[in-house]
Amino acid sequence: MSDCIFCKIVAGEIPSFKLYEDDEVFSFMDINPLHDGHCLIIPKAHYPNIFEAPGDVLAKLMPVVGRMARAVNAALSPDGINIMQANGEAAGQSVFHIHFHVLPRAMGDDAKINWGLRPGDMDRIAANADKIRAALAADGA
Amino acid sequence: MSDCIFCKIVAGEIPSFKLYEDDEVFSFMDINPLHDGHCLIIPKAHYPNIFEAPGDVLAKLMPVVGRMARAVNAALSPDGINIMQANGEAAGQSVFHIHFHVLPRAMGDDAKINWGLRPGDMDRIAANADKIRAALAADGA
Repeated sequence: MSDCIFCKIVAGEIPSFKLYEDDEVFSFMDINPLHDGHCLIIPKAHYPNIFEAPGDVLAKLMPVVGRMARAVNAALSPDGINIMQANGEAAGQSVFHIHFHVLPRAMGDDAKINWGLRPGDMDRIAANADKIRAALAADGA
Repeated sequence: MSDCIFCKIVAGEIPSFKLYEDDEVFSFMDINPLHDGHCLIIPKAHYPNIFEAPGDVLAKLMPVVGRMARAVNAALSPDGINIMQANGEAAGQSVFHIHFHVLPRAMGDDAKINWGLRPGDMDRIAANADKIRAALAADGA
């Protein structure tokens, strides 16, 4: 997409700290890092989010996410690492080209991805499960 | 693994709200949900984290993560959805069998996965990139 910053990074029109590239996948450093080693993995093709990315694209992407996580862990030994991907502004998405974060964490940092574990209402969870199964059955992919 | 709660769920020894199952992948509702529709996708085989999960396992897992995210979105229309996976206690991991969260979000919730975007030091990012590239080259996978 001509106005997508990540498409421009893939095309070399905007510079990046490139870490990895193959025919379909590209990885580079996040320049607004939460911690040292924060990097991104994207498909070269433009899909706005995980809802629209085909399964075969995700299948190519994730082994690279695993390799990058292992490399960040080996290189910088963070206390932990989250893999994180956002869909929609409410989820924190700011660039609408699907991207997976390799997000190093420090014990007790304020990123708060550790939400409090609040036991759920089982009837409500069961009802939600029914709705999701129905949507899954309706989804041809 | 005999003492792993997720292995027991896959084996049917502990009940779950199952959403999806194939030869290698299993999906079920999180019973400590952040919001309605919060569910998990795991490989049936036991790997503690993304560092140890083989690439072909991740390649099988992620198209199912995409399908489940699409189904949750269609079924419950959350404001946004994060895909989240934790490695290590500092990252919020509490069950040491690799699992991907489909994490519905509500605008303005307190999950704070939207960390503040703080511009990084470019020299430091470049130095980290060098270390990660070296670790990547040393990683045979």
